[in-house]
Amino acid sequence: MSSQIIVNARHYRMPAAPTIVVCVDGCEQEYINQAILAGQAPFLAKLAGFGTVLTGDCVLPSFTNPNNVSIVTGAPPAVHGICGNFFFDEDTCTEVLMNDPKYLRAPTILAEMARAGQRVAVVTAKDKLRALLGHGLRGVCFSAEKADQLDVEVHGVAGMIERIGMPLPSVYSAELSEFVFAAGLSLLRRERPDLTYLSTTDYVQHKHAPGTREANAFYAMMDRYFAQYHDEGAVLAITADHGMNAKTDSIGRPRIVYLQDRLDARFGNQSTRVILPITDPYVVHHGALGSYATVYISERERQKEVADFIAGIAGVEAVLTRAQACERFELPPDRIGDLVVLGERLTALGSAADKHDLSGLTVPLRSHGGASEQKVPLLFNRKLSGIDDARRLRNFDAFDLALNHLA
Amino acid sequence: MSSQIIVNARHYRMPAAPTIVVCVDGCEQEYINQAILAGQAPFLAKLAGFGTVLTGDCVLPSFTNPNNVSIVTGAPPAVHGICGNFFFDEDTCTEVLMNDPKYLRAPTILAEMARAGQRVAVVTAKDKLRALLGHGLRGVCFSAEKADQLDVEVHGVAGMIERIGMPLPSVYSAELSEFVFAAGLSLLRRERPDLTYLSTTDYVQHKHAPGTREANAFYAMMDRYFAQYHDEGAVLAITADHGMNAKTDSIGRPRIVYLQDRLDARFGNQSTRVILPITDPYVVHHGALGSYATVYISERERQKEVADFIAGIAGVEAVLTRAQACERFELPPDRIGDLVVLGERLTALGSAADKHDLSGLTVPLRSHGGASEQKVPLLFNRKLSGIDDARRLRNFDAFDLALNHLA
Repeated sequence: MSSQIIVNARHYRMPAAPTIVVCVDGCEQEYINQAILAGQAPFLAKLAGFGTVLTGDCVLPSFTNPNNVSIVTGAPPAVHGICGNFFFDEDTCTEVLMNDPKYLRAPTILAEMARAGQRVAVVTAKDKLRALLGHGLRGVCFSAEKADQLDVEVHGVAGMIERIGMPLPSVYSAELSEFVFAAGLSLLRRERPDLTYLSTTDYVQHKHAPGTREANAFYAMMDRYFAQYHDEGAVLAITADHGMNAKTDSIGRPRIVYLQDRLDARFGNQSTRVILPITDPYVVHHGALGSYATVYISERERQKEVADFIAGIAGVEAVLTRAQACERFELPPDRIGDLVVLGERLTALGSAADKHDLSGLTVPLRSHGGASEQKVPLLFNRKLSGIDDARRLRNFDAFDLALNHLA
Repeated sequence: MSSQIIVNARHYRMPAAPTIVVCVDGCEQEYINQAILAGQAPFLAKLAGFGTVLTGDCVLPSFTNPNNVSIVTGAPPAVHGICGNFFFDEDTCTEVLMNDPKYLRAPTILAEMARAGQRVAVVTAKDKLRALLGHGLRGVCFSAEKADQLDVEVHGVAGMIERIGMPLPSVYSAELSEFVFAAGLSLLRRERPDLTYLSTTDYVQHKHAPGTREANAFYAMMDRYFAQYHDEGAVLAITADHGMNAKTDSIGRPRIVYLQDRLDARFGNQSTRVILPITDPYVVHHGALGSYATVYISERERQKEVADFIAGIAGVEAVLTRAQACERFELPPDRIGDLVVLGERLTALGSAADKHDLSGLTVPLRSHGGASEQKVPLLFNRKLSGIDDARRLRNFDAFDLALNHLA
């Protein structure tokens, strides 16, 4: 058996011990900080002593799918192609959902490790990620959301509800993520996979700020599982797909720039098309409102005019051309619009007001998508070595650091 | 008596009712939001119903003195001259403390209102602000810090400790700010000033994140006073000097770029001088660490080289030349260095490591100074009217909005 594999031009050593990479969805670093201060995360509180605590940048847009796929491919969206949940196909004039693995342009570290003979397991909270993360993978791969429908032939394992002893959680719950951790622990103890990838949902982070009772309870739950993985001898790497910020004013009202409405009022209907790639079938908790949008323009010669107009809107942090966005954020040019727009930290970008259902926002809007949500934790339960001081660390370095840099 | 005055080229109507402008030091908007969610700010929770809730931008650097002085002059630092606690006098090669009113280049609305016959009162938490805010003012002006040393001839009032019935608070305490509000209420009830300016200290916000028990208790205290001002018939305007953000990693360790050390290592000692204008005699709770620095360069022809070097340091958000900074942030060119440097949201800028005493940082560093702390509340207990939708609101519009825009 070879001692290393090469995936997307990066090499990865075989796991020296069972290795678990966790992507904590929406883990603004302050959640961990506050849980530690509240005494609710004793394992993470002492991590710097025996492990390694780093900060990295996620990829933009700071959304779930682009970042989960970046983490498991060790590459940015320019390489793997997944830059949101939707892109606009200009040939067919349709908005295309990118959850299907046929849009994936790169192999995953997970699939290649399995191909190289390693036992690999993947557990996601929502089923929407399962197909992308499990693409080409021979091993265990299932979602907590559909854990009651497991088939050994398809998912590599069955009967997880019974093994774990938790009822099937609601897709909008903290328990959906807890199920992921419980499944990871059960797999670690019984199947002992060489490499495990666990990915949670940010339901809690969308609803609750760092330091609140609910957030601290969620991080306390994770902390207990992390401690158990550690005690079982696993190498543990913890990162996030993106951070999370309030997108409100001081009394919790959402601050939203409805970009399509503004553009229609200025340039007329049909002249531009705003795509919000955060849109997906599960939008109740954020109303499809994030701090990233991409804009397609019918008359290309008006691009600068449109860009200048958007840049002048209060709450807009940056407007980039396709070329600028692709260079700065390593995005695939054929899957973004003529412009990329980022909202400021406290502002979300909408399309048309009547396209957003805010009735599910029972608490002040918290969301992500922009550069304000780019800082994420990179935590390891081992000392690392051989990391260049000048290196810009990314969340998609998690596998590299956990496999190649153990001290 | 004239119906309006003109100060720094802006006009202000005489107060129609006793008017209180409050500057809540370090009031990141999320503090209010979380206190409301926790049920601890019932007055602020219903403010949007009978009043007005807006968001504005503070001036950069997002420090206490530049912003307090901007609020009371209705003007940016380019006009009033106060752009930090320190500037470097290149003629005498000394670092000059700007707390002395002789550095103030503009009259205050407070002093001009008093000159026009209005009864004016100013209460600050720390004494360092008293002299600047009270410059030229005939009226009441004192600090909670030195409330035991009041002299009617100097401060316009005496015996406040006895009137309020609170012991003299420590300069590092939540009570220092509470004393300000209690004094404001006592003055409102007895002297009934036409115009009152109250300015608190951000001791609590430097130590405690939004939504924590201590922060919520602090905002609950303020909420009770706001409700009493309202019940007494006052027109109330609430804004902030700046926001507040964690400057740490996920386990609460400070993220600091020691700029002087980095510049000395690269360009040699004496070639650059880093000034941190947050530095003042009260630095225990933030170690003189904020997200703003200004850099003086001995060899001007190396300016671009120095700027490019700084821009490449991880954690630096922006590097501007003096001209760029003066244009973008409306700063006085003779009181900033050749470069202005902003730290990212989660990063503080230091000078040399051995110049910072971090022993007072008993909790994870929270600070301000950069563009990340620019959004502040603008809250009013009255409906406002006649505000142009396209207008960029600033915290230093507080007097204009409270006096000129009552519906």
